[in-house]
Order: sequence, then structure tokens, then C-alpha cells
Amino acid sequence: MAEKQILTVPGVHVPKTKVGLTKINTLVEAAERLFSRASFFEVSVSDICKEAHTAVGTFYIYFESKTDIYRYLVARYKKDIKRALAESIAGCTSRLEVEREGIKCFIRYAVADPNVYNIVWGSLAVERQMFEDYYVSFAESYARALARAKDELKVDDVLSTAYMLMGITNFLGLQAIFEGMTDKQIDDAIDCTIMPILERGMFR
Amino acid sequence: MAEKQILTVPGVHVPKTKVGLTKINTLVEAAERLFSRASFFEVSVSDICKEAHTAVGTFYIYFESKTDIYRYLVARYKKDIKRALAESIAGCTSRLEVEREGIKCFIRYAVADPNVYNIVWGSLAVERQMFEDYYVSFAESYARALARAKDELKVDDVLSTAYMLMGITNFLGLQAIFEGMTDKQIDDAIDCTIMPILERGMFR
Repeated sequence: MAEKQILTVPGVHVPKTKVGLTKINTLVEAAERLFSRASFFEVSVSDICKEAHTAVGTFYIYFESKTDIYRYLVARYKKDIKRALAESIAGCTSRLEVEREGIKCFIRYAVADPNVYNIVWGSLAVERQMFEDYYVSFAESYARALARAKDELKVDDVLSTAYMLMGITNFLGLQAIFEGMTDKQIDDAIDCTIMPILERGMFR
Repeated sequence: MAEKQILTVPGVHVPKTKVGLTKINTLVEAAERLFSRASFFEVSVSDICKEAHTAVGTFYIYFESKTDIYRYLVARYKKDIKRALAESIAGCTSRLEVEREGIKCFIRYAVADPNVYNIVWGSLAVERQMFEDYYVSFAESYARALARAKDELKVDDVLSTAYMLMGITNFLGLQAIFEGMTDKQIDDAIDCTIMPILERGMFR
């Protein structure tokens, strides 16, 4: 993940100083490296501090627990994915184009950083509510965006449509990772198979 | 999960005797109960044996490791899901009907046993290859079934279509769990939103 923005997350005390911001990011990036190689349950706060060259006391200035640094990491992924999606759709003039570019953007993101599945789907084992909150809020904001484009759509139930589109995007991302698909192969799958289905199926 | 069938799984020594079959199922069901309440990493072989009222030595007659009993559990879910799907589509006379009934069947399965996500998506943290094998083989058999119905379909790339359909089904299952949807609400989402999109989009 490229972004280093500071987020408001329960159980996390975001520092105001530049030194503090650097320290919190160092800890989060150390945690991310460790969680990409081992599960949440195999990594201790002390492992994270060792990886970050930080005293354990410093960790607890920012994070109330190991679960809270994980929550922060999930929130950071969410914000980073939303930033990447927003950038990818900036020039789009129709909802059809937005869907096409958004789906391709997420799949490329997942191929470049497959750890997104480990972190987000892994949250189900860390804290069920964290996993649910992630997808419920993603689906709700997706559904609001679809509702704003309702005159371009053949569907009424925008929330189920949002879950459908999230499912398509996540599972095409898995296919791209499993098969080591190139950008060209990803574009072909989306342009020649998925988008024609959606264009005929859900767009006016 | 209702099924108690014995499967061929690497690292698992399936017993030939009736007593052995009962014992292996007792262990697997104990493991499933524990893995539904805590992660793979928080549960020990000794916890599983205690839950199953079985000696630790007995565990190792059947399973080479804790990872192997998890692999067996994932294989058992896969077989049970395929059995439920096969039953649900038994009377269908077109691929469109097969998709409709299959999607509804999986969503009802997931609502009745949300632990399916914990076990299957949790396998990503246990052993990445186990997770990949699960979805690759599911997608391949789904794609073969779509290929057999090609004259009913508007799509050429049946593998990407299979991943698309798996994604839709899995994420509508999440929506149904998160929102506590009734059978009627699930049927409405599928009959009035998802299937019309698929019918227009991918069926002739």
C-alpha cells in the first residue's frame, strides 16, 4: 500500500506531531509486513515493535491493542482502495465507464498487492464486526453512487447490485492472482466478457 | 454442515473400520466447533482432542497435523456445498434455472452456516495453497458446466464467467448474513435484481 494518511479509528490515538506521525506509520508498516507473512495470531505486539525498531511502551501510546493496529491497517487499505478507485474513474463520463474502470482498477490493485485479501478477509478471524463493518460501509457507499446514476440503470435494488459488483470485482481479482494474468489479459476479461454482461444486464 | 462423508485428502489417513470412521468424524466435528469460535492459530491439537474426548495419540492416527484436519474440513465443506447445489438443481431444465437455483441454494447454505466463510476464507491464513486450490478447482468445474451449456450463453470466456458467478454468490451470501435477510428477501433479490441482470447479460 502506498498511502500514509492518518485515519480516525477507534482504539487508535493519532499523534499530532510530525515525529509522532512518522512513528505511527513505521509501526503500521512493520505490522503490515509481519501480517503478510504470518497470521494475526502468530504475530505479537513485541514482534511488531522489534520489526519497527520501537519500544513496546511506544506502541501503546498509539494503539490500545494488537486488534486496534489491525483495525487501523484495514481502515488504511479501505482508504487507499477508495483513493485508487477515485483516481481511476476521474475522467469517466458515464456510470458504465465508472464500473469498467473501477473493476479494472481493483483487479490491478489486488494483483500488485495480493495481501489485501489476507488483511481484509483475515479480519473475519480477528474480529467479525471489523469484517462486517468494512463490507457494509463499502456496499452502502457503492449503493449510494449507483442510486445517483439510477437513470442509467435497469435495476431498482442498488444495494444487492452493489454486493453483486463487489463480488465480481473481488473474485476476478482472485482469478487474476491465481492465473498470474497480465494487464492485457485482465483488460480482455473485463472488456470482452464481464462488461458486456453488465452492459446488457444492468445498463439502459 | 450435515454431511459426514469420508474424503481422500493429503495428510489424512482415512480409516477402514466403522469405529475408525466414527472417530474421525468426531474429531472433525470437534475441530469445526472450535474453529467456529476461535481462529486456527488459537486452537491446539490438544484442544481438539479434549473437545472430542479423544486421546492425542488417536488424533495422529488419522491426521498428520492440525493443518491436515483443517484441510479435511475445507474438503468436507466443498463436498457438502457441491451436494447441496446438485440437489437444488436436480429438476432444472435450462442453465438459466440452474444458475438461479444454485445461487439461491448457496446463499441459504451460507445463512444457515455462516461458518463456511470462516473456514474457507480462513484457509488463506492457514495455507495459501489450500485457499487457491479450493477456488481454482471450484472455478474449473463451474467453467466446464458452463461450457456444456454454451449454446444457451452469450459468453465465450467461461472461466472468467465462473469467477464472476462465484463472486456474485459469495457476496450476496454476505449481504444476506449481514442484513439477516429472510428466505423471501433472498428470493426477491435474486429473482428481481440479480437474475434479470444475468438473464439479459449472459443468456441467449
